[in-house]
Amino acid sequence: MTVPQNTSPDEAGRIVLSIDAMGGDRGPSAVVSGIARSAKKNPELDFILHGPAAELERLVARKKHLRGRVEIRDAAGVVTMHDKPSQVMRQGKGTSMWSAIEAVRDGEATVCVSCGNTGALMALSMVRLRKLPGVNRPAIAVLWPSRNDHNFNVMLDVGADIRADAEDLLQYALMGASYARNGLDLPRPRVGLLNVGTEEHKGRSELKEAAELIGDHAADANYDFVGFVEGGDIPGDVADVIVTDGFTGNIALKTGEGTASLIGDLLREAFKFSPLSRFASLLAYTSLRRLQKRIDPRRVNGGVFLGLNGTVVKSHGSADATGVSAAVKLAFQLAKTGFTERLAARVASTAGKQQDAPKLLDSSGAS
Amino acid sequence: MTVPQNTSPDEAGRIVLSIDAMGGDRGPSAVVSGIARSAKKNPELDFILHGPAAELERLVARKKHLRGRVEIRDAAGVVTMHDKPSQVMRQGKGTSMWSAIEAVRDGEATVCVSCGNTGALMALSMVRLRKLPGVNRPAIAVLWPSRNDHNFNVMLDVGADIRADAEDLLQYALMGASYARNGLDLPRPRVGLLNVGTEEHKGRSELKEAAELIGDHAADANYDFVGFVEGGDIPGDVADVIVTDGFTGNIALKTGEGTASLIGDLLREAFKFSPLSRFASLLAYTSLRRLQKRIDPRRVNGGVFLGLNGTVVKSHGSADATGVSAAVKLAFQLAKTGFTERLAARVASTAGKQQDAPKLLDSSGAS
Repeated sequence: MTVPQNTSPDEAGRIVLSIDAMGGDRGPSAVVSGIARSAKKNPELDFILHGPAAELERLVARKKHLRGRVEIRDAAGVVTMHDKPSQVMRQGKGTSMWSAIEAVRDGEATVCVSCGNTGALMALSMVRLRKLPGVNRPAIAVLWPSRNDHNFNVMLDVGADIRADAEDLLQYALMGASYARNGLDLPRPRVGLLNVGTEEHKGRSELKEAAELIGDHAADANYDFVGFVEGGDIPGDVADVIVTDGFTGNIALKTGEGTASLIGDLLREAFKFSPLSRFASLLAYTSLRRLQKRIDPRRVNGGVFLGLNGTVVKSHGSADATGVSAAVKLAFQLAKTGFTERLAARVASTAGKQQDAPKLLDSSGAS
Repeated sequence: MTVPQNTSPDEAGRIVLSIDAMGGDRGPSAVVSGIARSAKKNPELDFILHGPAAELERLVARKKHLRGRVEIRDAAGVVTMHDKPSQVMRQGKGTSMWSAIEAVRDGEATVCVSCGNTGALMALSMVRLRKLPGVNRPAIAVLWPSRNDHNFNVMLDVGADIRADAEDLLQYALMGASYARNGLDLPRPRVGLLNVGTEEHKGRSELKEAAELIGDHAADANYDFVGFVEGGDIPGDVADVIVTDGFTGNIALKTGEGTASLIGDLLREAFKFSPLSRFASLLAYTSLRRLQKRIDPRRVNGGVFLGLNGTVVKSHGSADATGVSAAVKLAFQLAKTGFTERLAARVASTAGKQQDAPKLLDSSGAS
């Protein structure tokens, strides 16, 4: 391996994030506004910003909270939403996305954030950062509004790979638990395996095998395994981490988002129906705002790529400044806890062939 | 085949439904209240009601709209939610569920309705009604609240079988289109195949093969194929029928239900937060009721078993009188349109080996 260790907080205790300014639906101005918002709230943050230098310099100059905290890396090329991942892998050098990942690869930044094309971002991350030893398939994890006290569950994989065998699902459990510890501050997360029923005899054979593997590693890897869970448990409170293959996870994610969006629209329609209901909606404004904030997808903006030598946060393509700032906040938290190194240690210490290797971390087993 | 043709409307133009009174979470009184509600609204309906005769007679006697319209079939045994399907198949004779299916098998009723154990109901339906010629795997179809003008989409399979190959998915498309024509009055439904992206190169290989098959049969079978759709399109407006395997469909269904239920609870919480928001919720009462009615799962209560010699409607186990009445309404509509025979003709006329068989229906191709 020639990939250098990614450094955590640099000498001065500051966190440097690598930001792809291009590729989102709202262009670089939304990205610059988002990082400015984060910079204002969080004095520990610095940025390396990738994209066309002239344009970025102009945008950054307007934000006083970014003064002296942004290094601009000129990259003229942009990966669009329509570019094929395979093409970007071959010809993507010179794009802002490539440059943003490179800064993590070179250890200049701890975490990369991009609003761009998911498939291309994953493909570039795979070839430039490479997979962690012991990981066969990287995964994308999202936070999902739930009934749990901490308001969110982790679900993975939501679409890095459409296949996953029992060993892959075990890796997802390990990585998801590690993410829940570092991203949600849960010391001992509860892990559930998604299936069509909770009874042991249900589901495909690879799921039964995966359930055994995940159960076997629970004590060592410091999580509780709650067994099979169903679709209704993704927003529920029986598990903190929901493990599934990328095909099922992607469909569940989009079904949940689509359902929430339909209900939101119908709710707005209902309140527009009559003068009385319009008046009611004014009175209920703060209540409805509170609800909206609780389930606003912009505030849980960021799929995290797990299983690579470096952490990449994928923001929604349609993210506005609020969304970008939420993704930056998540990236900061993961950088601050040294998540990349902890995850690597966890996976390495549990990977079958490396079971006898010494643990790299503190003896509490948390990672 | 010794199974007799299921008759449509009997001599007097009346529709007879076979109702399993037992096995739901709320017992036979909810079922009897539900069918009484339907009987009041719809004078064309008669019922054969299966369960312990003494108890049912007492419950039916209290409902004036059921007078002279219910035939009670004594069946002492009850299939519980915990019974294994394989066990019910061997030892289920004498249960109300078995008896209810038998009345459809014998041609005494057109459609069977049960609130009982889904797995057991499907297993019994398979052995007693048998699969339609040309169908390899029967499917369960549900109606899903959507942005479409007709307010619902059809999705199948939501859990009859965890596997489906390309041929099975084609059968689901044919059966789902037929259901949309007869259940939603859509002359030419738009069919979509669920995948992780809409681009042609995405997804598993059996999905690419299925997409070709479903596209090839569109003209003959009188539907439009819109290609791949994503999870967000299940409650959307790009397709009327969403085709997927039973594993994915079950997870999507339960994820959607769980998300809707979480939002509903958070909405109630939001409105309880302060005296002002409680007052607002009073003013907004009719608006919120309207929304609730639109997405109330009780009002779209009924998974339909497709691909058997006879139609079975599976009501939610937790259905109250409103839920049972909704399932009965759906069963009535399917009985009235002669859905069972139309579906059989459609599948037979499209099944590969029977492509040259004469069409059994009107030349318009609608079935």
